[in-house]
Formats: sequence, C-alpha cells, structure tokens
Amino acid sequence: MYDIVILGGGPGGYVAAERAGRMGKKVLLVEKERLGGVCLNHGCVPTKSLLNSAKLYLHALNSENYGVTVQGAEFSLEKAMKWKQNVVNTMVGGIEFLMKENGVDVVMGEGTVHADGSVSVGNETYKGNSLIIASGSSPFLPPVPGIESSTVITSRDLLQMEKLPGSLTVIGGGVIGMEFASLFSSVGVTVTVIEMLEEVLPMMDKRMAKMVRASMEEVDFRLSSRVTRIKNDRVFFEQNGKEQSVQSDYILVAVGRKANVESFKNAGIAMGRGFVMVDERMRTNLPNIYAIGDVTGKSMLAHSASRMGEVAVNTIAGKKDRMRYNAIPWALYTTLEAAGCGLTEDAAKKEGRSIHVGKYQMKNNSRFYAEHGKAAGLCKIVADADTGVILGIHFVGGVSSELIGGAAVIIESELRIQEIKEVIYPHPSLSEVIRDAVWQINQGGNDA
Amino acid sequence: MYDIVILGGGPGGYVAAERAGRMGKKVLLVEKERLGGVCLNHGCVPTKSLLNSAKLYLHALNSENYGVTVQGAEFSLEKAMKWKQNVVNTMVGGIEFLMKENGVDVVMGEGTVHADGSVSVGNETYKGNSLIIASGSSPFLPPVPGIESSTVITSRDLLQMEKLPGSLTVIGGGVIGMEFASLFSSVGVTVTVIEMLEEVLPMMDKRMAKMVRASMEEVDFRLSSRVTRIKNDRVFFEQNGKEQSVQSDYILVAVGRKANVESFKNAGIAMGRGFVMVDERMRTNLPNIYAIGDVTGKSMLAHSASRMGEVAVNTIAGKKDRMRYNAIPWALYTTLEAAGCGLTEDAAKKEGRSIHVGKYQMKNNSRFYAEHGKAAGLCKIVADADTGVILGIHFVGGVSSELIGGAAVIIESELRIQEIKEVIYPHPSLSEVIRDAVWQINQGGNDA
Repeated sequence: MYDIVILGGGPGGYVAAERAGRMGKKVLLVEKERLGGVCLNHGCVPTKSLLNSAKLYLHALNSENYGVTVQGAEFSLEKAMKWKQNVVNTMVGGIEFLMKENGVDVVMGEGTVHADGSVSVGNETYKGNSLIIASGSSPFLPPVPGIESSTVITSRDLLQMEKLPGSLTVIGGGVIGMEFASLFSSVGVTVTVIEMLEEVLPMMDKRMAKMVRASMEEVDFRLSSRVTRIKNDRVFFEQNGKEQSVQSDYILVAVGRKANVESFKNAGIAMGRGFVMVDERMRTNLPNIYAIGDVTGKSMLAHSASRMGEVAVNTIAGKKDRMRYNAIPWALYTTLEAAGCGLTEDAAKKEGRSIHVGKYQMKNNSRFYAEHGKAAGLCKIVADADTGVILGIHFVGGVSSELIGGAAVIIESELRIQEIKEVIYPHPSLSEVIRDAVWQINQGGNDA
Repeated sequence: MYDIVILGGGPGGYVAAERAGRMGKKVLLVEKERLGGVCLNHGCVPTKSLLNSAKLYLHALNSENYGVTVQGAEFSLEKAMKWKQNVVNTMVGGIEFLMKENGVDVVMGEGTVHADGSVSVGNETYKGNSLIIASGSSPFLPPVPGIESSTVITSRDLLQMEKLPGSLTVIGGGVIGMEFASLFSSVGVTVTVIEMLEEVLPMMDKRMAKMVRASMEEVDFRLSSRVTRIKNDRVFFEQNGKEQSVQSDYILVAVGRKANVESFKNAGIAMGRGFVMVDERMRTNLPNIYAIGDVTGKSMLAHSASRMGEVAVNTIAGKKDRMRYNAIPWALYTTLEAAGCGLTEDAAKKEGRSIHVGKYQMKNNSRFYAEHGKAAGLCKIVADADTGVILGIHFVGGVSSELIGGAAVIIESELRIQEIKEVIYPHPSLSEVIRDAVWQINQGGNDA
C-alpha cells in the first residue's frame, strides 16, 4: 500500500514524486515510456538544445561586425541531434537518480486506473491512499482530409530527423510551430507557416508577436489561412477566399495538444472539453484522486505541471496550498527570443481594466546594443492604474527567456511600480530594461 | 539660477539629471569630458562589448560538439574595437538625447566647486539651490617603485589598444583585473595575474571565486603575492617569502580606484578615507550639497551611483527616500560569468548570523546542460535561519549577469524561502536554479 501513486513521469509527475518522497511519503511512480515525459524526451528540452545549436550557427555566420570572422561554417544536423540526445539521456538519468534519492518506487509500463483508484500495470495492481493523474497530452491532429499522408509529421518526429529536409510546411503558428520554423529556417530549410488567425502566437501582445514574425525573414507566413486538405506532400488552404497550396518535403502539424485520457477513461473522472476537471487544489470529482499538468488543460506548460504537482502533494499532506495561474511565465526560444508573464496590454484592455503601460526599446540598453546592435527588442510592462501593482511583463529580444523568471517574481509578489523603481539592477545588463520600462510609465505625477 | 547643479555626467550624474528634469526641475549638468562618465566611455560598457566579442570567438572555436563546425576562426581586435567605439558613441548620443528630452542644460568643461556651493566652469559661474557632486573616481596607482614605467597602463589605456599585445601582466585580481585577464587570454594573449590576497575576487564566496579562477586555465595566477617593484617591463613580487618576477609587453594596474576630489578640494566638504562622507540621503556635511557614486566610496558600481542619484534628487524634492546597500547586485562578465547580490555564506558566518544555505549545480539544469554541458556552474542561496528571509543569491556560470537582476528583486523585497518555492520559473531555463537551490535548503521540516 502506497501513500501516493502517480500516473505519468513527466514534469508534473516526477516533481510530485520527488516532493512527496522528500516528505517521507511512500510513493509509486508509473511511467509508460521514459521518465521526463514529453517535455524532456520529445518536447521542450530537445527543442531548446537544437535551437541553441542553431543560435551558435548564426553566431558563427554573423559575428564579423563584432570582430570574429569565420571560414566555412557548417551546421551538422547529425552532431546537433547527437548532442541533443546526450542532453535528454543525461537529464533522464538525473530524474532516475532523484527518484532513488527520494525513495520513490518507479514502475515502467502502461497504467490503467480503476474506479476504486487502484492502478494496474500489466498483471500487477497498485493501490495508494491517493492517486495523482499526470498522464500528459499528445499532439492533436485535426480532422483535415489527407492528414494521414506520410509527409505529415509531429514535433516528435521532427526531433528524430536524421537529415535536414529541403522544405517544411508548418501548420499552426503557436509556440511549437514557431520554434520549429525558427530552428529549421535558421539552418537553411525552406519553411512556410500556415496560421488560421490573423497573427501568430496568440498568447502574445499583438505588436510583439509581429516583431517575432518579422524577425523570421526567410519564413513564408500565411496568416488568416485555413487548411482545407492535404494531398500527399501538398497542403491546400484558403486565404482571402482563395484556395492556395504549398508543397514541401514534410508537413508539421502543430495546432494544439489533446489530453491523454486512455488510461483512466473507465474510472468515472469528470471531464470538461476533453480535459480532467480540477479545483485549485488539483482535486478531481473523485475522492483522493488528483490530476495535474497537461491532462487538466489548465496551463499546458512543464513548469505549470510541476507546480500543480507540488500543490497536489501539499493538499494530500494536509498543507494549505493552491494553484494560481496569474504569474505563470512562458518563453519562446526562437532565434529572436520572447517571453511573458501576466496580463498583456490587449488582455487587460479586453477585461476593461484601467492600466498604465511602460515600454522600453532594448536597443537603448547598452548591453543589448553591444551584443545585438539595432536588432528587434522590446520590454512592455502593464500595471494597474489605481494600485500601481505590476500585472504583466513582456519581452522580445536578447535573453528574454532568462529575464522572465525575475519578472515572474515581481508578478507573483504583486510588487508595485514604486517598488521596482527602488530595485537596483546591475549595469550594464539587459535586465535593466524592466526598471527602464517601469520608469516610462506615466502615472500622471512627478514621481521620481 | 538652477534648482540643481550636478557635477559629473556619469551614471550617477546623468541619471540624477534625468530624474530631476523629468520632475520639472531646472537642472545644469557639468561634465569635463564626455557624458556617460568612466562607465560608459572607459569602463563597464566598452569592456562588456569586447568581452562579448571574445565570447563569440570562443563560440566559433568550440561549438563542434553542438553541431557547428568552422574551418577557421579569427579574432580581429581592430573590428572588435571599432564596434565597441560604435557602442560607446551610440550610447553617449542616447544620453545627450535624454538630457535634451528632459530639459537638462549641459555644460562641457572642468567644474570647480566653491565654498558657497557655486560651480565655476572656465569664466562662468553657476549656482543652484542644490549641488550634487558626482565626480567619480580614477584608477589608483600604488606607490610601487617603477610604477611610472611606460609599460604600466590602466584599464582605460587597454580599451584603446590598437594591436593585441603578446603578453600582459595584471596587478590585482578584482573585477577589473579579472575581466581584462579573461578578455585577453581568450584571444590568445599570455596573461599573468598577481593578487596580494590568497584568492581573487574578494567580494565573492570563496568557493565560487575559485571556480572562476579555475575556469581561466590559460592564465597564470600568482596569489598571495605582493608586488615589490617594477623595472621596465618586469614586475617583481614576493610569493611565499621569495622574490619572483614576470616580464610582459604591458602591465595593467587594477588595484582599486580613488575618488576624484580635485574639483571640490577647497569647498570644505567633509572627507573620510579619501571619499566624501554622506548620509543615507546622500547629504554631505554642507547644506544643500549632496554627493553620489564613486566619489562617496560607498559602492563603486554604476548602478549604485544611479540609485544614489535618484535618492539625492528625491531628497532635494522633499520626498522620502534612502539609499540601501543590502540588495546591490554585482556581475562579473568574464567568459565564465559570475554574479551576486546580498550576503555571501562567508560574510553571514563572519557576522555570526544563523543561516541556511542552499546550493544547486548548474549542470543539473537542463537548459544549462544543453548549452554548456558539464561546464562550471553553481547557484548558492543564503537565508536567515529564523525568518527564512533570503539574504544572498550568488551565481557562477551561464548568464549569471542576467539572472542576478531577478535575484535583486528577491533580496530587495525580503522574500522568504516559502515564497520562492511558490514562484513559477519557466522550464527549461537557467533561472530555475534559484528555485532549485531554495529547495535544497533543509529547514529541518518536511516542507514541500
């Protein structure tokens, strides 16, 4: 008898297992494939490894202005993939170690949840006082005629590719689509992105999404375009009422992800729109059954899943904790990075909130200019007009993905304009743009 | 008649001028050389530009493992210097614009402060209701026999160098000495660093300072070594009671900086140990005369000077503000970066504080490993054992210099261990090491 059985060893499940093990709970973690889940094995981590290789390649090509000339720069997909796989394997090993260190039992195999909360794996059945479902998600393939074509692939397939294709069509201009478009176009692949909405990256501030798109000059973007069918290696889509098409070696479908529900479909867990319904303590409708991560559809990000795992474990342990969604950062690791946390200007206005907005061009920051010249870059801060509380911080450019952690601290802590003005950021650093953007907020007073 | 006259247009003076101008004050800024001061023209900014060039050169040389091969890579000091000068000139132009935009009058020339607080520049005398002295500092040349040798140079000279020297001896293993040692050794110059203390970088956690030193494998470090004399191109020093010497093309002296006091030496301003004495509102002993930045010797960093400028301006405007020194970050931009904010473990123990320490190896972070493999990297968190308040955050490795801004928010806001555990950092990002290091703190309880 376990204290906690956890179904799924991704960033939700393995973090929950570690935290619970650390508390002294007896924990079983069931994983059908490999610890680390999609994020580590087929998602965020390998993508970032390859994108780093692409960025190093661009450095090699484009550093002459900074005093570095290079002859004969070449990108080897084979080597980049080999390194990526080393990264994945090393990190999976790290999680295995973490599980041992915290006394977590791990069973490899496909789990099936029964109505009483027990979980079968093969011939064995395991029971815990509590069950945490962290079964994750899979790429959603839309019901487009021809989607079964052999040229249609998912992000997972692309991460195993052995040879660079000549051309790639990406259906879907969200985070996954844009990162792969950036990666492959950087190393010479002809890339077309087809997006149904009028702009890519719908979670972003419109203006900033446009900056990212504009930075990918080599990519052919087809916005407001609805894919109608696929025939072999050709995608047909409707743009401005006209049918058009594009041919390519591969077609990446990246239009969203669906919850993995197979393992618990007969257990009586309440669902909504295809995802498990949970409250702010990650409780499902059934007593002692919790769900965390992508399967809840609440915030399909690895770090959200990890935090949900902590909330579930704390709840099981009788500690007060709740999941909050207002200060979850996201980051886009395209060669021009972007990141955000909290409300965008657009979203705040849609909510009818009274806000102040501060903007700062990164090229006015000395470190940014030294390292990127006049490249695109912007920081935008959204604050509540009445209280001065910072509601949103958004970046395009530089190491946005590393600045956003500090921004999450600000939003989670509900810091105010005046408090940020008194924070001392190091000079010269890109992080100064946060303070500089805050200083651009005109609160209508002579506040220094 | 001005509201405020400011002597010195560095990061103390120009920020004070901008903030005051923005408030509607009538401001005069006196600068003897060029807006931006030492930091922008001869210090932090040009150094960081050159260090970025060096880092790009190392990328070009060492990216094969990540999939990028080059036939040959060359570092051109001429081009790197040209870009650096472009950066400096562009940023100086930005400050000039900022001054105009905020209605600040700028007078170029050497100012002399009189006992009544007026300032003469050439034949003109200017008077303000308040005076802010922001005259900065200059390299300190120790009274070592032979220091007048033509091979002895300062950081300022090095930043104007037209040809790479074959060899360089650096006297002083502080931030300036280490950054230049890193820069020049990275591009093939034979570098020796002579440091009087037993370890370089005395403001750092000892173990982390050692990591930085160890990363600079090509540099010959002579620790616990006291320079006794210089003869032409040879530095003599005593190490373990024995006289030794090293010969090099140039000798960089970087043992500290002294306040620039010439301009106000007859004004009756109270001094202590060679620096202007100020209170926490930046007031000197004389009514309506303030001092900020390096000339106070309080925290000789550009960002400290800027914040001091804001405190002085707020004080003049009758707003409550005070300078705090506990949350000032520093960053070291050597090819292995390091940064810190708040108390080190060593310092906390010396103060006799009861603390918890959390450490996290960066190579266990997936983004770090993807981008740097098993390179050196560590995050160390120091927290008060009783309250859980975070007192210090220190990094070696990766983009430490950009992570430390977020750390400064934590320390300035006096956040606690439990609060950081609830912050969601993006995955995979290096910024996660802060949360991971916090989780390593054993508070003696089963806290998840």
